[in-house]
Amino acid sequence: MLPGLDERTITIYAPIQSRLQTVETRLRSLDEETVPNLKMLLDYVLSTGGKRIRPAMTLLASDFYGPQDESPITMAVGIELLHLATLIHDDTVDDSVMRRGKPTVSHQWGNHVAILLGDYVFSASATWVCDTGNLRVVCRFAETLRELSTGQISEYFNNYNPEQTRQGYQDRISRKTASLFRTAAECGAILGGAPEPQIAALSNYGFSMGIAFQIVDDLLDFQGDPVEMGKPVGSDLMNGILTLPTIMLLERYPTDNPVAAYLKDRTNERHLDRALEMVHNSGVVADCYAEVREYCARGLRELESLPPCEARDSLQALAEYVRERYR
Amino acid sequence: MLPGLDERTITIYAPIQSRLQTVETRLRSLDEETVPNLKMLLDYVLSTGGKRIRPAMTLLASDFYGPQDESPITMAVGIELLHLATLIHDDTVDDSVMRRGKPTVSHQWGNHVAILLGDYVFSASATWVCDTGNLRVVCRFAETLRELSTGQISEYFNNYNPEQTRQGYQDRISRKTASLFRTAAECGAILGGAPEPQIAALSNYGFSMGIAFQIVDDLLDFQGDPVEMGKPVGSDLMNGILTLPTIMLLERYPTDNPVAAYLKDRTNERHLDRALEMVHNSGVVADCYAEVREYCARGLRELESLPPCEARDSLQALAEYVRERYR
Repeated sequence: MLPGLDERTITIYAPIQSRLQTVETRLRSLDEETVPNLKMLLDYVLSTGGKRIRPAMTLLASDFYGPQDESPITMAVGIELLHLATLIHDDTVDDSVMRRGKPTVSHQWGNHVAILLGDYVFSASATWVCDTGNLRVVCRFAETLRELSTGQISEYFNNYNPEQTRQGYQDRISRKTASLFRTAAECGAILGGAPEPQIAALSNYGFSMGIAFQIVDDLLDFQGDPVEMGKPVGSDLMNGILTLPTIMLLERYPTDNPVAAYLKDRTNERHLDRALEMVHNSGVVADCYAEVREYCARGLRELESLPPCEARDSLQALAEYVRERYR
Repeated sequence: MLPGLDERTITIYAPIQSRLQTVETRLRSLDEETVPNLKMLLDYVLSTGGKRIRPAMTLLASDFYGPQDESPITMAVGIELLHLATLIHDDTVDDSVMRRGKPTVSHQWGNHVAILLGDYVFSASATWVCDTGNLRVVCRFAETLRELSTGQISEYFNNYNPEQTRQGYQDRISRKTASLFRTAAECGAILGGAPEPQIAALSNYGFSMGIAFQIVDDLLDFQGDPVEMGKPVGSDLMNGILTLPTIMLLERYPTDNPVAAYLKDRTNERHLDRALEMVHNSGVVADCYAEVREYCARGLRELESLPPCEARDSLQALAEYVRERYR
C-alpha cells in the first residue's frame, strides 16, 4: 500500500484502496519523458509520502451514485499533482529546508530546479485534469489554481505584518488550502454523477475539511516534535507568518505582546520564546481547537444529505481523523 | 495603440486592431484582486511592451470562416498571459537581469516574488482559456504548458553541455517556443470554426513561425546592440546555453574550438571573444539564416490552402516580418 499511510487512514480508505493504488502508480509513472533528471526528481518528491488525503476525497466523493468511469481516478491524479506542485514552489518561496523529514527540492537542488520542477508538475496536473474530458471540472480546477496562487501571494506580502485579522487569516487559508480540498471533493462528486444539491454538499464538506486541516497544521507548528514534523517548533512565526494562534494573541493582548515584539526585532530570541510560551499558556490553543471542531462538525452535517454507504462512512471517519490529528 | 508595436506590425495587425486592443485592455484589468501589490507587479510586466505576436496569430487564425463569437479574444488573452508567465519564470531560472531594457521581476523584487507572480499569471492564463468554453482548446493549452515546461527543463539540464546536437536544439526550441506559436494559431483556427485541414495548416504555420522566431532570437543574441536588446552580446553562451550558431560551430570545428574551450573555462574571456568572433566570421550565421528562411517558406506554403482574405495577407506579412527581424 502507500508508504505515507498510517493504520487509521488505511482503514478509512478501504472502499477505494485499489483505485488509490492506481492513482499512486500513475503518479509514479509520470512521463518517462526524454528530459534527463526529471524522473529522479519526481521520484524524490513522491517518495516523501503524504497521506494522499485530497485524491482520497475525490475518489470517495465520486462513489455515491452508482458505477462510474475512470475519470475520478484521472482527476485524483491531477489533484495530488497540483498539491505537490504547490509544495515545491511554497518551500522555495519560504526558503524551507525540510519537508516531512527530507530536504526540500529547493534546498537539495537549488531554487532554479525547484521552479522548473514545480512548473512541470503544475503542467502535468493540468493535462491529467483535461483527460477527464469534463469541461466543468477543468474550469473548477483552473479557478482553484488562481485561488491557491492569490492565497500564497497574500501570505507572502503579509509576512511580518502585525495588523493581520482573523478575517484575513480565514480568507487566506480559504484560498491557499480549503480551495483545493473543496475542488477535490466537488470534482469527485461531479464526475461521479451526483445531483446538484449533493455536489454542493460535498463541495462544502471539502471546504470545511480544508479549513480544519489548515488550522490543525498551524497548531501543530507550535507543538510537534521537530524531528517528526521535519521543521523547528514555531517555524511559521520564525518566518514571519502569522497563523490563528498568534493572530488571536495579537488581538487579545494589544500591549506588551511578545509576538509583536518578535516581528519588530527577530534577533531577540527572548521574544520568540515568550511568544511560544504564551501560545501554550494562554487559552488560544483551546480556542483554535474549538474552531477545528466547529468546521469538522459543519463538514459532518453536510454529509447528512448524502445516501448512506461505505463512502459516506469513510468521509465521516476522515473528518474525525482531521479533527484528531492534533491532540 | 499598443506600446510595443512598430509601424510594420501596426500595418500587419490592421484587420484585428480593435480586437487586439480589447486583448490589451483585458490583460491590464487582470483582477483587481484584494491582494496587495499584485496590480503593481502586473502593470510592471505588461508595460515592458512586446509585439503581442502570439495573440495576434490567434486572432488572425480565427478570421477565415465568417463571423464568430468573442472566444478568440478570450483565448488570445490566455495565450499572452502564458507567454508572460514563462518569461517571468525563465528570467528567474536564468538569473537574467534585464528584459526589454527594464530590470526583470526577479532582479527587481527577488526570486520569491517572481515565483509567486509567475504562478499567478499561469493560473490567470488557465482561467481565461477555460472561459472559451471549448474543451479542445483547453486540452491543447494544457499540453502546451507541459511542452513549454519540458523544453525549459531540457535547456536547463543541458547548460554547459558541449555534446548537444542540432536535433537536440530543434527538439528543445520546438517545445519551449514553437509549441506556443502553434497552439496560438491552432486554437484561433478551432475557435474560428475552420475545417480540420485548415486547422492543421494554421497549426503547422504557427509551428514553423515559432521555430523561425526562435532561431532569429538566438541569432540576435550574437548581434544586436546590447542597449536595444537589453542584454549583453553573447549572453546565451555566457549563461552556458548553446544555440544553433554555437552548436554548428562545435559540429564543424571539433578541434581547438573556442566554444568548447569557453564551456570548460568560463573565467577565460579570451575564449568567449574568440567564440563570438568565430560566430561572425565563419559561415554559421548565413547557414542559420537559411534555416530561418526555410521555416518561413514552410509557413507561407501552409497558408496556400486557406481562403484569400485580409487575415491571410496579414499572416503572410507576419512570416516576412519574422524572417526580416534579423538583417
